Amino acid sequence: MSVADRLFGRRLASNEEEGQRVGPLTGIPLLGLDALSSSAYGPEAALTLLIPLGAIGVGYMLPITAVIVGLLLLVYLSYRQTIAAYPSGGGSYTVAKENLGTPAGLVAAVALMLDYILNVAVGVSAGVGALVSALPQLQPHTLALCLAVLALITFVNLRGVRESGLVFLLPTYLFIGCILLVLAIGVAKTLLGAGRPAPVVAPPALPPATAAVSMWLLLRAFASGCTAMTGVEAVSNGVSAFRSPAVAQARRTLAAIVGILVVLLVGITFLARAYGIGATAPGLPGYESVLSQLVAAVVGKNVFYYVTIGALLVVLSLSANTSFAGFPRLCQVVARDAFLPNAFAHRGRRLVFSLGIYALAGCAAVLLVAFGGITDRLIPLFAVGALLAFTVSQAGMVAHWWRTGGPGARRSLLINGVGALATGAALVVVLVAKFAEGAWITLLLIPTLLAIFRRVHRHYANVDREIACVEPLNLADLRAPIVVVPLRGWDMPAHKALRFALKLSADVYAVQIRTDEAGDDLRERWDEFVGEPARAAGLAPPHLEVIPSPYRRLFGLLLDYIAELKAAHPDRQIAVIVPELIEYRWYHYLLHNQRAQVLKTLLMLRGGQRVVVINVPWYLSA
Amino acid sequence: MSVADRLFGRRLASNEEEGQRVGPLTGIPLLGLDALSSSAYGPEAALTLLIPLGAIGVGYMLPITAVIVGLLLLVYLSYRQTIAAYPSGGGSYTVAKENLGTPAGLVAAVALMLDYILNVAVGVSAGVGALVSALPQLQPHTLALCLAVLALITFVNLRGVRESGLVFLLPTYLFIGCILLVLAIGVAKTLLGAGRPAPVVAPPALPPATAAVSMWLLLRAFASGCTAMTGVEAVSNGVSAFRSPAVAQARRTLAAIVGILVVLLVGITFLARAYGIGATAPGLPGYESVLSQLVAAVVGKNVFYYVTIGALLVVLSLSANTSFAGFPRLCQVVARDAFLPNAFAHRGRRLVFSLGIYALAGCAAVLLVAFGGITDRLIPLFAVGALLAFTVSQAGMVAHWWRTGGPGARRSLLINGVGALATGAALVVVLVAKFAEGAWITLLLIPTLLAIFRRVHRHYANVDREIACVEPLNLADLRAPIVVVPLRGWDMPAHKALRFALKLSADVYAVQIRTDEAGDDLRERWDEFVGEPARAAGLAPPHLEVIPSPYRRLFGLLLDYIAELKAAHPDRQIAVIVPELIEYRWYHYLLHNQRAQVLKTLLMLRGGQRVVVINVPWYLSA
Repeated sequence: MSVADRLFGRRLASNEEEGQRVGPLTGIPLLGLDALSSSAYGPEAALTLLIPLGAIGVGYMLPITAVIVGLLLLVYLSYRQTIAAYPSGGGSYTVAKENLGTPAGLVAAVALMLDYILNVAVGVSAGVGALVSALPQLQPHTLALCLAVLALITFVNLRGVRESGLVFLLPTYLFIGCILLVLAIGVAKTLLGAGRPAPVVAPPALPPATAAVSMWLLLRAFASGCTAMTGVEAVSNGVSAFRSPAVAQARRTLAAIVGILVVLLVGITFLARAYGIGATAPGLPGYESVLSQLVAAVVGKNVFYYVTIGALLVVLSLSANTSFAGFPRLCQVVARDAFLPNAFAHRGRRLVFSLGIYALAGCAAVLLVAFGGITDRLIPLFAVGALLAFTVSQAGMVAHWWRTGGPGARRSLLINGVGALATGAALVVVLVAKFAEGAWITLLLIPTLLAIFRRVHRHYANVDREIACVEPLNLADLRAPIVVVPLRGWDMPAHKALRFALKLSADVYAVQIRTDEAGDDLRERWDEFVGEPARAAGLAPPHLEVIPSPYRRLFGLLLDYIAELKAAHPDRQIAVIVPELIEYRWYHYLLHNQRAQVLKTLLMLRGGQRVVVINVPWYLSA
Repeated sequence: MSVADRLFGRRLASNEEEGQRVGPLTGIPLLGLDALSSSAYGPEAALTLLIPLGAIGVGYMLPITAVIVGLLLLVYLSYRQTIAAYPSGGGSYTVAKENLGTPAGLVAAVALMLDYILNVAVGVSAGVGALVSALPQLQPHTLALCLAVLALITFVNLRGVRESGLVFLLPTYLFIGCILLVLAIGVAKTLLGAGRPAPVVAPPALPPATAAVSMWLLLRAFASGCTAMTGVEAVSNGVSAFRSPAVAQARRTLAAIVGILVVLLVGITFLARAYGIGATAPGLPGYESVLSQLVAAVVGKNVFYYVTIGALLVVLSLSANTSFAGFPRLCQVVARDAFLPNAFAHRGRRLVFSLGIYALAGCAAVLLVAFGGITDRLIPLFAVGALLAFTVSQAGMVAHWWRTGGPGARRSLLINGVGALATGAALVVVLVAKFAEGAWITLLLIPTLLAIFRRVHRHYANVDREIACVEPLNLADLRAPIVVVPLRGWDMPAHKALRFALKLSADVYAVQIRTDEAGDDLRERWDEFVGEPARAAGLAPPHLEVIPSPYRRLFGLLLDYIAELKAAHPDRQIAVIVPELIEYRWYHYLLHNQRAQVLKTLLMLRGGQRVVVINVPWYLSA
């Protein structure tokens, strides 16, 4: 078993893919962790903006949550239709591209990619942030912890889809189970307590109001709350990860995810109002997260509390995993259309798209380092991409139904149309409300990335056009090439190179560049060593050219000589034979000048269409 | 003018070397800065150990200095003879090798190399240490400053010998002039003051004695004081840097350096006693260097004081430059004998041995980082190498005179014999006295480096033996090779590669490795594209082998195929043609799999003696 096998698992054959596919039970942690963990920071982000309203603020959460849940249901209905219409996956990118044209598809793709990356950064930083709140002595190592968690997730994902699904199964269902139980107990207590239940542990008193209600404040709270919607699109991008019947499995998974998410959002809002729980100022002493207050109020700070919070911490930092399933697949689809380097479309040894995983981890690491691993600073950048992708994708579905027509198309068109309008409106609100706080970064990145995609595409198109060949083999003028053999002196590698040259052609030119430090002049014994035997064998003796190099230059003089030969023989190919010592141990490379390597590279880059490089190795035995 | 020309200066021809050679005026700063600047820390290092003796301690400096000066004169006489006997330079290494055998020469070389490296580290750290004493706000950046100064010196030296001599001329002579003037004034005042001159600025009072005089204490003070002798060997290593008559110029330079150094040491000791100046505890508040106290006592803290101390600071940090002249030349001589990688023997664009300069800078940087840029911690490692080299070199001269005989040889043998015994005794004293403080590191490094030298030498010897060739060209069996052409599909690079293959041989094997992601099966149109035209031209059509790759492996399968061909044709060479796209812009390389590169490397490393790699480039135009 090789090291790579141990680390990354056995290499998988392409036809082993079916066995790597998943059903809803594994699909929920795999593609839904992002969406579900949003419930931990979405409501809190909205409540944080309502702090200035004091106790009244908590009351405004009900309408805000209602709007968000309404949007969520529209998005659900919309993606349900998308999954059926596009069972091969690709989600927003594919839908927008096929129905609205490639530019719209690329906009959706870029938006989603940014959102995937931000999801990794926010998930990891929120998880680590909660951890260092619980264990303040870890606080100075926040960024290092973030990067360590990121490295761990990256590693797990490089092993492949199903193992990572299994790794994340337990904490996800533990989190869902615990929170649903808390919500059920809380609702029961509220109903029994006639709407005013007595908290087991009283939450911090809500501060006095310091501002009046304004539409602007409510809009900003809504915009922050929209982060609760991120991640819902993952299922439609990952339909191909489900085992057949993939469409039905994916729909069931999506329904389960959205259903649980709605219950969590509504339950949290309802109980926050019943218990009078608001946000506390983040990053200041006395801060306690909304979910922590809520669980403590309903069941008290017992073992169950710590299990719930523990599961939440794990789920938050692992929610990044959704991106690791979605981002590489999106990159693959985009790379197949030649808008990204084609290495993104190649599956690695474990059937995952390794380069996409590395790229995602790299970008998220850059974000974490740039923002110091602080969640608060990352949140404002977050929702833009998701809402933009929702909107473009649903607009694409509208065009799709318009074009296909047929029974039921009118109803489907209506659903997607309402969805597109609603998420589009939400996008405008988020952009306006969060522009100064960071949404501008996203707005700046999108056109930049689009421009890069365009250039990549143009390059591939140019290359394809240039190397395209539909003609049969042209066999005119098969004269042997002119062969150039650069030599340092008369030794075994030189001997072998010269022998090979004479196998190829009768026109052989040996060249010696003599710097001061070089050894003997080859001319002295050339006739004895080469001329005589060649004449005896009835061959034309190879020419020898000795070029002095007072400035100790080597490569320039050789390239000049080859250029002269090219000019003298405009209709011939020039083959340059480079003798090379092959070392037995890697550290021996330090002991020799890598002149052969340099020469090969220079010849390939500057030789021109007519120059061919031939590498004759001489293996050292020790 | 290229960037490299601007940065490093115009490329110099090998025969321009004479113009780069120096006389005594430039030779003193170039090869003597190390020796002269030792006067700034040698006496102080001895005085620091005498602090416990209080005022009595200063008195013991006279005998200690007398012994050091005596040793110095012996070393001078010895090296004077060496310069004449070995005018080509190489110093201790050459002398020891030729007279005592290669092992002794290598011991001397290693000792000197370590000393050169330590001299750079100590010089830079002492200079920066003095600077941050004067400007305490720079204290936190000590290490960064050390590295910056090191980088500057390295850069100046990469430009070549003479320019760096000019750069260092002014501060050296300013330092020598100022100190000699201070000593003259001080001696005059002492004589006029009947041995008890009144200080202009009184030095700190000497502390009360806390220990009695012991032989051990005096030996340790002597061992520390021996650092004043470091650097004297530089001239004999650098004889080849002098313009002719080189021997006379070098002797004059050595005499001047040793003469000035002796005057400085004697003068400092004399005035320290007359003014009652002792060392102050290094690294503690109230510290003031001996030279600073001395200058202030003689002339007061006026402009002249600051000029002198300023010149001292510059000279201290630039004394490292002596090593930059000596170390690369020593490496070159050792590399010529094949004990170091031969790249050390190649002169760069400005006729300096660039690799030696980089190696010295790198080692010194490691030392500075390891010891935090603190001079005090480096000093104990310092003198061992120099004394060891002195001893081995003089012992070699004894053997030299013994062998040559003739008139005057007896006298010369006596001089070198006494010198060898004296420095050998001093070496034993230093080793014993400073073992625990750091001399053990040097003792450990010397055998390690010697072992590396041996292995390098053995490797070169093996290679030379293996590739040696004294036979004329063997022209038996010049059959064309079997040609293998790996193809991805039918495109222009493939077309060109196949055409070249048919120029070389009638036995052409095209191979397509098909992964899932690959394009069309080449078999479908092979006959149309290749078979038909070949038959029409009367050629044997190339074979086509299509190999499926369910695990998406590429290189392994191709290497297996080539191994099969080798086994089937045990008497033929195999030429593998690798078609390669050559990009127009470097960043386009990110867009393509570097499969051709990987394949070439694998074939060169694992192909075996019979496999030749042919690289057929296809240049993209945009």
